[in-house]
Amino acid sequence: MRMVDIISRKKEAFSLSEDEIKFAVSGFVNGKIPDYQMAALLMAIRLAGFDENESFFLTKEMTNYGSRVDLSEIPGIKVDKHSTGGIGDKTTLIITPMAAACGGRVAKMSGRGLGDTGGTVDKLESIPGYRTEISPNEFIANIKKTGACICGHSADFATADTKIYNLRNDTATTDSMGLIASSIMSKKITSGADKILLDVKAGSGAFMQTFDEAKNLALLCREIGRLSGKEVRAVITDMDTPLGAAVGNSLEIKEVIETLNGGGLEDLRGLCVLLAAHMLNMAGLGSLDECTLKAQNSLKDGSAFNKFLEMAENAGADTKYIKNPALFENAGIIRGLVAKKSGFIEKLNAKTIGRASFILGAGRAVKNADVDFSAGVVLKAKQGEYINAGDLVCVLHTNNENAANEAEKLICENIVISSAQPPKVPLVYEVLA
Amino acid sequence: MRMVDIISRKKEAFSLSEDEIKFAVSGFVNGKIPDYQMAALLMAIRLAGFDENESFFLTKEMTNYGSRVDLSEIPGIKVDKHSTGGIGDKTTLIITPMAAACGGRVAKMSGRGLGDTGGTVDKLESIPGYRTEISPNEFIANIKKTGACICGHSADFATADTKIYNLRNDTATTDSMGLIASSIMSKKITSGADKILLDVKAGSGAFMQTFDEAKNLALLCREIGRLSGKEVRAVITDMDTPLGAAVGNSLEIKEVIETLNGGGLEDLRGLCVLLAAHMLNMAGLGSLDECTLKAQNSLKDGSAFNKFLEMAENAGADTKYIKNPALFENAGIIRGLVAKKSGFIEKLNAKTIGRASFILGAGRAVKNADVDFSAGVVLKAKQGEYINAGDLVCVLHTNNENAANEAEKLICENIVISSAQPPKVPLVYEVLA
Repeated sequence: MRMVDIISRKKEAFSLSEDEIKFAVSGFVNGKIPDYQMAALLMAIRLAGFDENESFFLTKEMTNYGSRVDLSEIPGIKVDKHSTGGIGDKTTLIITPMAAACGGRVAKMSGRGLGDTGGTVDKLESIPGYRTEISPNEFIANIKKTGACICGHSADFATADTKIYNLRNDTATTDSMGLIASSIMSKKITSGADKILLDVKAGSGAFMQTFDEAKNLALLCREIGRLSGKEVRAVITDMDTPLGAAVGNSLEIKEVIETLNGGGLEDLRGLCVLLAAHMLNMAGLGSLDECTLKAQNSLKDGSAFNKFLEMAENAGADTKYIKNPALFENAGIIRGLVAKKSGFIEKLNAKTIGRASFILGAGRAVKNADVDFSAGVVLKAKQGEYINAGDLVCVLHTNNENAANEAEKLICENIVISSAQPPKVPLVYEVLA
Repeated sequence: MRMVDIISRKKEAFSLSEDEIKFAVSGFVNGKIPDYQMAALLMAIRLAGFDENESFFLTKEMTNYGSRVDLSEIPGIKVDKHSTGGIGDKTTLIITPMAAACGGRVAKMSGRGLGDTGGTVDKLESIPGYRTEISPNEFIANIKKTGACICGHSADFATADTKIYNLRNDTATTDSMGLIASSIMSKKITSGADKILLDVKAGSGAFMQTFDEAKNLALLCREIGRLSGKEVRAVITDMDTPLGAAVGNSLEIKEVIETLNGGGLEDLRGLCVLLAAHMLNMAGLGSLDECTLKAQNSLKDGSAFNKFLEMAENAGADTKYIKNPALFENAGIIRGLVAKKSGFIEKLNAKTIGRASFILGAGRAVKNADVDFSAGVVLKAKQGEYINAGDLVCVLHTNNENAANEAEKLICENIVISSAQPPKVPLVYEVLA
């Protein structure tokens, strides 16, 4: 078997066999196949397509490399939740303690953010003392004790996926449906979950720009799950506007705490209840209606907040910040932007707010770069709402004067206020069970 | 400017600008852009397309690297001829002395073969003593003295094209129309010719399998020529059957000598007259009819043969081989294959004969490998002709018993003899002036 022939067959849009995919991936990971041949194959996959079987073969092969998490010591059905990512998406931080408060067992490994805003691990680390790099033993022990633990991936996690992803990033091949699905599913399978709940985002702030693309990705992941013997349920949600109000690491943690205490914005709270209810239902802890009620109650009776506190204690965090979020260090520059005219906010989309947060210092362009925990944007009005001239649109947080100016300019150039009321967009488009 | 953005734009089928192509090629040639990014771009070009302007920009940029041949010392209009390559194509060796005999000036640089059979340089080197590696000064001096010279490319010729071609070879991106045209045209422009005559081959033994593909390539090369200020004329010819009878280095030289003496097969002789006539006409040496007559006469009156002899003398060759081709050393094994039944040869195509020649030792799979000058196939009957059972189909020449068996098996498996007369295929499909 020769790599050039595999590339050629894919280029001609033939479906690759399991052996061909195994040959390409193992050769690349082991350094026998040069990166330029893998790059050509990835572009051929991106342009000539990659079907369900090929995506399953790739997923399966990628799970053969790096560490595999063993959750067999933890009793019950372990459900993992994965979001395809969006601006202001802090749901993992909320539903993990919610599900644990309702009797679920959540073993959650997350990554750092690469792009406009930090990832779940970055957000947690904005709480002073919170350790996210822990051993597998500590991870399991925390889940046994508290019912939930969120930690970072170990260095040897998903090594094949990481090597391929880095190459995709440099070769403009990140946006292949088959490669995205294989990357997600291989990591979920390696993470040891029994069942997987996906939150697939669609809109300006997401990888998938349209509902159709998001649904296709969800269906593909579900099929890979089926072929892998893992039940996959997918929720397709809007990401044309940021989720909740805050975008930025400690700013989002403050919103997480507010939501866990029963407050916060309705969109974020509603989606968290929906996701937590599905996780509990998939874990066999009641009907969907029963689980929805449980999830709602966990926010009302303080049990979800208490679980979050317990998780933070386990992680060595200084919990006084969680009990009193006013203690979080503010950014040096806090600037409010006001509406220049009255009307409906036709456009103030997630792409713009994400980019502004990045400019303000909340994200990282390259791996291992520092993020400014205090930087970001807090929305005071959202896309679709009516606003009066002079009212606050959002508040910028940063430690860099030039960044504040640049982010302000970006938002002012991209906000559209008009007299006609824009059509309502649902937050949840569809649930694929 | 970032390479990843250029790859992304090409992937989305946008047309790349001159600056973007310059950035990609210069960065790659200078080692600033890694080969995996270039590989991804090449596959994106192959699958998303590359238009006339992009092909021209690539051609132009590639001419900026490596040595450039200066033919300004040679008076008159210099016409270069290029064949896209085929099995048994020895026309360069015949029309170069023909054109010189008719008053033309032919400065011809050729490559070694990589693939089924040797290249023009390999064929010449099968004449004992023939030096093809000469200095630019000797090249110019030979043309001034004799009117023609064929030599090999210098090591620093077409360095950008070579680097890109090697990557294309490893990444299954050789078959992109835009990349093929840019590669041909950049080398022709660097070779210093004023005008270019292309012989674009179509059929099983050629890169372009169909007439339509060959015509598209010809039109694209002509357009690149127009944008570069170089007149391009193209002849589209059949390569579903080998050209002439011989395939293999010294076997082809013997056929060249036979043809230059007015003999040989009609297909080869006719095409040589046509190509030589166009070269002379493009050089302003008469109307096409006048030039055709001159070219025909050069084969009848011995003048073309004498020019070939003179060229060989200039190159230090032992001309007794040319005067008496029987002196060429024969292969150790010479095996005739006969027809197993009577009928029309429906199929005995160039692909099969080319592959058989390779097996017998006439070609090289990797650069710098040795070729067996004496190896190859001589056809005794050609596709479309009637043959009687027991008559000779072809003769195999080799120094390897296993190779002889393998080539015999290949030809026997692929020859099709049937009772119905197959439709006639023209040798020359079209002339694009």
